[in-house]
Amino acid sequence: MVTRINLAEKLTRFDDRWNPRIIADLNDSHVKLVKVQGEFVWHQHAEEDELFLVLRGSLTIELRDGSLTLGPGEMAVIPRGVEHRPVAPEEVHLMLIEPKGTRHTGDVESELTVHEYSRI
Amino acid sequence: MVTRINLAEKLTRFDDRWNPRIIADLNDSHVKLVKVQGEFVWHQHAEEDELFLVLRGSLTIELRDGSLTLGPGEMAVIPRGVEHRPVAPEEVHLMLIEPKGTRHTGDVESELTVHEYSRI
Repeated sequence: MVTRINLAEKLTRFDDRWNPRIIADLNDSHVKLVKVQGEFVWHQHAEEDELFLVLRGSLTIELRDGSLTLGPGEMAVIPRGVEHRPVAPEEVHLMLIEPKGTRHTGDVESELTVHEYSRI
Repeated sequence: MVTRINLAEKLTRFDDRWNPRIIADLNDSHVKLVKVQGEFVWHQHAEEDELFLVLRGSLTIELRDGSLTLGPGEMAVIPRGVEHRPVAPEEVHLMLIEPKGTRHTGDVESELTVHEYSRI
């Protein structure tokens, strides 16, 4: 079945940070929404590229050789193997797209690590 | 290299309709932007799911058993094998994500068919 997915409505369904929710299947990937604030952990995904699309707020993605800051309507793809750390001084709403099975914090384990994603 | 992609800026780079531009690689998929207006052709993609995210305007996706209309901030995934026809009475700006190699009009050939996508 084909359904209309309203991102703003989906975002009203949760308030916790750093806990991505699956909103759709897309080939071998999941489309997710997440709210973040504060500093995440440095990590990488050895086999998976990850798309970040900012819906609200300002997200900095720290990289080992610099950083980039994304506002609403801006996106970046973090290629596999590239260490990164998302940082958000204020709350940011994001769409993420990454392969099913991508581990939340990649090669590291953190108190922020989510092992099983909920579907909304 | 990781780059910041501003969707609105990318959309200033072309004006033709029904001609998707590649803006990023994401695993085995391409992220594309497209401007559409009018009626597309009925088609399906036998092996590929296709994500439509509306950035501006109102897009109707006709299906054989109904239709759905998406506004800005709304998306849908058309699963592989599902016949669909996008229709836009006024201009619509879309983000599309689909596997590399997905044929524009799937199993049909039309005067609207694009055989090679440009990258912007």
